[in-house]
Amino acid sequence: MPPPTPWQRWLPILHWSRQYRLDHFAADGVAAAVVTLMLIPQSLAYALLAGLPPEAGLYASMAPLVLYAVFGSSSTLAVGPAAVTSLMTAASVGAVATAGSAGHAEAAVVLALLSGALMVLMGVVKLGFVANFLSHPVVSGFVSASGLLIAASQLKHLLGVPLQGDTLWQLAQGLPVQLPRVHLATLAMGAGGLLALLWARRRLKPRLMAWGVTAHTADLATKAAPVAVLAASTALAWALDLAGGGLKVVGHVPQGLPTLTLPSASASTWALVQALWVPAVLISLVGFVESVSVGQSLAAKRRERIDPDAELRALGMSNLGAGLTGGFPVTGGFSRSVVNFDAGARTPAAGLYTAVGLALAALFLTPWLHHLPQATLAATIVVAVLTLVDPGAFGRTWRYAKADFTALLLTFALTLVAGVETGLVAGVGASVLLLLYRSSRPHIATVGQVPGTEHYRNVLRHRVVTQPHLLGLRVDESLYFANARHLEDHIAAEVARHPEVRHLVLQCSAVNDIDASAVESLEAINERLRDSGVTLHLSEVKGPVMDRLQRSEFLPRLSGQVFLTHHQAVQALSRH
Amino acid sequence: MPPPTPWQRWLPILHWSRQYRLDHFAADGVAAAVVTLMLIPQSLAYALLAGLPPEAGLYASMAPLVLYAVFGSSSTLAVGPAAVTSLMTAASVGAVATAGSAGHAEAAVVLALLSGALMVLMGVVKLGFVANFLSHPVVSGFVSASGLLIAASQLKHLLGVPLQGDTLWQLAQGLPVQLPRVHLATLAMGAGGLLALLWARRRLKPRLMAWGVTAHTADLATKAAPVAVLAASTALAWALDLAGGGLKVVGHVPQGLPTLTLPSASASTWALVQALWVPAVLISLVGFVESVSVGQSLAAKRRERIDPDAELRALGMSNLGAGLTGGFPVTGGFSRSVVNFDAGARTPAAGLYTAVGLALAALFLTPWLHHLPQATLAATIVVAVLTLVDPGAFGRTWRYAKADFTALLLTFALTLVAGVETGLVAGVGASVLLLLYRSSRPHIATVGQVPGTEHYRNVLRHRVVTQPHLLGLRVDESLYFANARHLEDHIAAEVARHPEVRHLVLQCSAVNDIDASAVESLEAINERLRDSGVTLHLSEVKGPVMDRLQRSEFLPRLSGQVFLTHHQAVQALSRH
Repeated sequence: MPPPTPWQRWLPILHWSRQYRLDHFAADGVAAAVVTLMLIPQSLAYALLAGLPPEAGLYASMAPLVLYAVFGSSSTLAVGPAAVTSLMTAASVGAVATAGSAGHAEAAVVLALLSGALMVLMGVVKLGFVANFLSHPVVSGFVSASGLLIAASQLKHLLGVPLQGDTLWQLAQGLPVQLPRVHLATLAMGAGGLLALLWARRRLKPRLMAWGVTAHTADLATKAAPVAVLAASTALAWALDLAGGGLKVVGHVPQGLPTLTLPSASASTWALVQALWVPAVLISLVGFVESVSVGQSLAAKRRERIDPDAELRALGMSNLGAGLTGGFPVTGGFSRSVVNFDAGARTPAAGLYTAVGLALAALFLTPWLHHLPQATLAATIVVAVLTLVDPGAFGRTWRYAKADFTALLLTFALTLVAGVETGLVAGVGASVLLLLYRSSRPHIATVGQVPGTEHYRNVLRHRVVTQPHLLGLRVDESLYFANARHLEDHIAAEVARHPEVRHLVLQCSAVNDIDASAVESLEAINERLRDSGVTLHLSEVKGPVMDRLQRSEFLPRLSGQVFLTHHQAVQALSRH
Repeated sequence: MPPPTPWQRWLPILHWSRQYRLDHFAADGVAAAVVTLMLIPQSLAYALLAGLPPEAGLYASMAPLVLYAVFGSSSTLAVGPAAVTSLMTAASVGAVATAGSAGHAEAAVVLALLSGALMVLMGVVKLGFVANFLSHPVVSGFVSASGLLIAASQLKHLLGVPLQGDTLWQLAQGLPVQLPRVHLATLAMGAGGLLALLWARRRLKPRLMAWGVTAHTADLATKAAPVAVLAASTALAWALDLAGGGLKVVGHVPQGLPTLTLPSASASTWALVQALWVPAVLISLVGFVESVSVGQSLAAKRRERIDPDAELRALGMSNLGAGLTGGFPVTGGFSRSVVNFDAGARTPAAGLYTAVGLALAALFLTPWLHHLPQATLAATIVVAVLTLVDPGAFGRTWRYAKADFTALLLTFALTLVAGVETGLVAGVGASVLLLLYRSSRPHIATVGQVPGTEHYRNVLRHRVVTQPHLLGLRVDESLYFANARHLEDHIAAEVARHPEVRHLVLQCSAVNDIDASAVESLEAINERLRDSGVTLHLSEVKGPVMDRLQRSEFLPRLSGQVFLTHHQAVQALSRH
């Protein structure tokens, strides 16, 4: 395929559709059928998790898939409601409206539109790098805590009691009161569903293969197992009329396709925008990071590449689509994308076909969903999110770096006890603070000459020769605002300790950049050294850094000289 | 002098007082007399700027000087009310109480206690590095804008009209209404004061020297000029009874020393704490940065050294002292410290004597201040703060680096139009964002062999030899969360562009650190490359980085090897 033109980079569908062939259609069609089967229960479950009516889950899976197929740069990413973003939706929307109310659905729509607009904007102005604020430890702690929170939030559906709360703390407080009121039929249905799903996930494939089924078919059967569990529990609930006995079922799901809706341009909408823009930023970042990680992993398997800024625009358009069709925030989900990939999807057209499959489900299948027990949906959520919890990350990160472990633990703990937003924001703050802390104390070595050579090394690690009137310092870091003052302090301390020093040479071989703060610090250092009777010299300044220094007022005022090599500096200054 | 013991490091007075001699006493006494003369009008003026009664300025100059002498590590820093912190006090206290009211004074006290406690805490846990968040461009933009804001805020005193506002925008809006109501005697007094002060600052010294006065005496006379202007205008206002004609004068200043006061432990105090802790953080940071810069500059002139963490503790104690004696937030001021230094202060005892001088002034001088016109005080403020405005910084920073210029301009503009807090917070946010942006795209060079040597250089800059199945990449930056994903993107793009590549060697000679995010990215890169049939190798990994990698799960899973030198890697992999 020829490389994409600029137009095709903005609309990747113009690129891949030109080469679309019949065998692509066949492969995409099969993948779409498999993904549709998986998405029907998943969409309903995530709508439940987000505190929205079940049809919102179906709606949030159609328009986004179509729009992603038009704008997305990954050939296999499947976009729709995902566990963590649904939890974040529940938390932020729950703060402005009661779950299940019309205001709740409207807030979810506004949230999707806001995240969509933010993502498109960030993609257009190439702000995708902002996602870098979310370091791996923060994401890991956040996702693990979210998995636990989601599982805990499903307790109310599994037990059939009204248990409210956005944090583990709130849920734990409500539990003792509610435990005696557990609805037994609900508990039986939920526990049965959980056991069946866990058994299918762990044992079904080996059991089928022991019976002579091929690995491929056994795999497909394992993936279809949740649908079978849902169908069986629905049939059971219908046959025994468990809903009449108090078992909560999905109930009436409107038949038909979503309609185009826009929130009214009223003061209450404006109030929603003001209340939800911070959560929208966080959901956008989390959704983007999840989606890009999944997309890159899958693209690498085919030696393809995804464009992060194009991904931002495509996810943004998908969220706008979700918002305009009564859905809620969506992202590229891990499990659905992997299934899509494994089932053989070749192009984003597979997403289009999946959307058609879901549209057919919304048109004809919804009456069959009436008796689907909410407890069974909750069981599918719990089984799905337990894979998000990664206890091993704590040990790994602790062994690797204490600073990273601090960020991980802080994010994890705060997400659990103070909620998703607080946890995420505190984690990001901690990462940035720890970064500044680390880089605020760069390694600065006093260097001396390795005897008989032109090499200069750390006096603490090597046997080297120094001269009393000449101090050589090597800075092992770029100089910028976070460490400029440390350099001032360090040099002041060294010069105060060595009153006999007359020349100070800064070896800049490891300095890749000097920002405006650092150049002002260098000016201050130069002046203070001059006041103490010490001349400041530089050596081994890199080309681009020198170019920049020449545009500053530091060089003309430098009391000493700039030497090409540290050895030249030492030779020239030894004569004094 | 022997180096300080740990006790003496915490209480520097135990160190310097042991060597205190009579000639120190003489030098410190002279300096204290000069500084006292300068501080009397300055304290009153900054109290006016902060919207507080004049005696608050005197009180804020006594206890802090004493406490700094006990805890401070600089021998010449003079602590007291300063222009920028007084403006910040006015803005934050004005947001919770009306200027001049009792609540206003109480809020200022709470603010001083809060900043004091924060600074002591930060000093004890060695959090001084947090001040690094304030990059030079941000401080420069903030101080320039503060200078303009302070000058604009004095317009009401110079014109004798009630002009309210915390931002240039608010002040400009009020001006057209107020201009016709200008009080002419006030205007005359203010303009006269301004002209006299500007003339004295620029012309007095050369004029006196032309008359045969020595440079030293002319210098002293120039410094005493503001006192003379104040005395003359007070005499004029008294003789012509201008206060009776509507000229605002300082009025009654209570005679006597400040008393120890504690804010009541009431709900309203708690509400003040909640409203003022963010401004307190900002005032602490700004005050600390100003104080440390001044302290370091002066210490360098005597080859002394100040300890930033000790400075934090000392400034914190000074602010606690200011709060407990009815003052407001203080810091090490530039002009007073320079005067103290120039007048020959040898030890912090000079601060003690200055405090005694100010106490005498509070006991005996206050009746003489009754007729001092507020317009003249405003004129001294305007003349003092105009030196804060540094228009040259814009051009210098623009030429030096566009990113730094952006931070400077943003801070300057937002401080002027949206207020000091918004400006400062936005500036800090922009610095951190720009830092992450810059370091999120590290320089990554594709390297090839310089023919006939073992050196490898950038293929874009040198004539080098590469092999089609082997890709060598050199990363010129430490790898951490802000740039880990860029590395993933870059490698994915390179491998997609070169389908014939079988081996990728990352040359790590410039990588000083790899954090947990980057190691996870390396794991992802390793896996994706394996999926695309490419083996990943490392070369020239530094010792400490290698130690850390050995504690991760990346090395055991690495599809390729770690080579000591890049040349060894190329030699070994050429055979395949």
